[in-house]
Amino acid sequence: MNFCSHCGEQVKHKIPPGDNRPRYICTSCNLIHYQNPRIIAGCIAEYENKILLCKRAIEPRHGLWTLPAGFMENQETTQEAAKRETLEEATASIDNSQLFCTISIPHISQVYVMYRGDLIDGFAKPGIESLETDLFSEKDVPWNDLAFPVIRESLQLYFSDKNNGQFQVYNGEMRHDEKHNIITQIY
Amino acid sequence: MNFCSHCGEQVKHKIPPGDNRPRYICTSCNLIHYQNPRIIAGCIAEYENKILLCKRAIEPRHGLWTLPAGFMENQETTQEAAKRETLEEATASIDNSQLFCTISIPHISQVYVMYRGDLIDGFAKPGIESLETDLFSEKDVPWNDLAFPVIRESLQLYFSDKNNGQFQVYNGEMRHDEKHNIITQIY
Repeated sequence: MNFCSHCGEQVKHKIPPGDNRPRYICTSCNLIHYQNPRIIAGCIAEYENKILLCKRAIEPRHGLWTLPAGFMENQETTQEAAKRETLEEATASIDNSQLFCTISIPHISQVYVMYRGDLIDGFAKPGIESLETDLFSEKDVPWNDLAFPVIRESLQLYFSDKNNGQFQVYNGEMRHDEKHNIITQIY
Repeated sequence: MNFCSHCGEQVKHKIPPGDNRPRYICTSCNLIHYQNPRIIAGCIAEYENKILLCKRAIEPRHGLWTLPAGFMENQETTQEAAKRETLEEATASIDNSQLFCTISIPHISQVYVMYRGDLIDGFAKPGIESLETDLFSEKDVPWNDLAFPVIRESLQLYFSDKNNGQFQVYNGEMRHDEKHNIITQIY
């Protein structure tokens, strides 16, 4: 950030009076431009013991498989965002959606909010951001071709609960250590 | 938003190619400035069957009671945000924190992520944003002097679960209807 989005003058990165961390502050109108984490909302949609995955048509991770998920928009709920992303990426509709997990990824300032639900009629076809959609049983999930570690983690928690016959709501985090290994913690 | 925070030129509010909703787009460098909901993280801290509330020293709702909560910062987890806010607003530390509820408030593009936990040593004193801190049993909560409807909803769910002897994780939303009544839905 270089300029104030309100008045167009330059910003400086410094700690405002009474605050404890640096912010972008306008040198002219003094507006403070706060920056906050973004929510990625998505869905694990199930039909006849199989779950819906999408092969990504966009970067990053073009050609790898993912759950339908994307940035939550203003003026919507997390549940609406999860359903909208599932519709946009997989032309799929969800019933009985329930919160399944929220996972913070602090090094990229993202919070994943994943729902689980029933894929209506088992129907899906690729939206503009997907090359392909398909339904997978646990053993057939392309575990080595998943787009993001948080997708793998969500699916592992899901199948573990499914095999136990009872779903919980999970909360946790995924971090990088100094060697860029991923450290996952579910509370 | 009037100006591009990257190059300082004017932005226009229009739908980018391949998108389906208007964004602020720079007329010079073409950068798209996405805007997304913010997370408010907070905590219901309990000690000897009483919960911690703070009397607000800031607007909005100066002088009314609230749970310690505030905007999540970049590079932190929702749990860290909840603990930090509890420390900042009530000088209080939390143990055994668990996710309790996430509630979307779409008309203000906020998502509340509330934890529950044990207030260590029962200790609290006002931080700079609080006039007063105190511990309340369910019947002594200042129900008519709470700062925000989402705080009332979180506390009602909490005491209901506490009285039932088992805590769940809740997900829901609070909306305004045309007459500005609040419509709460817990899924």
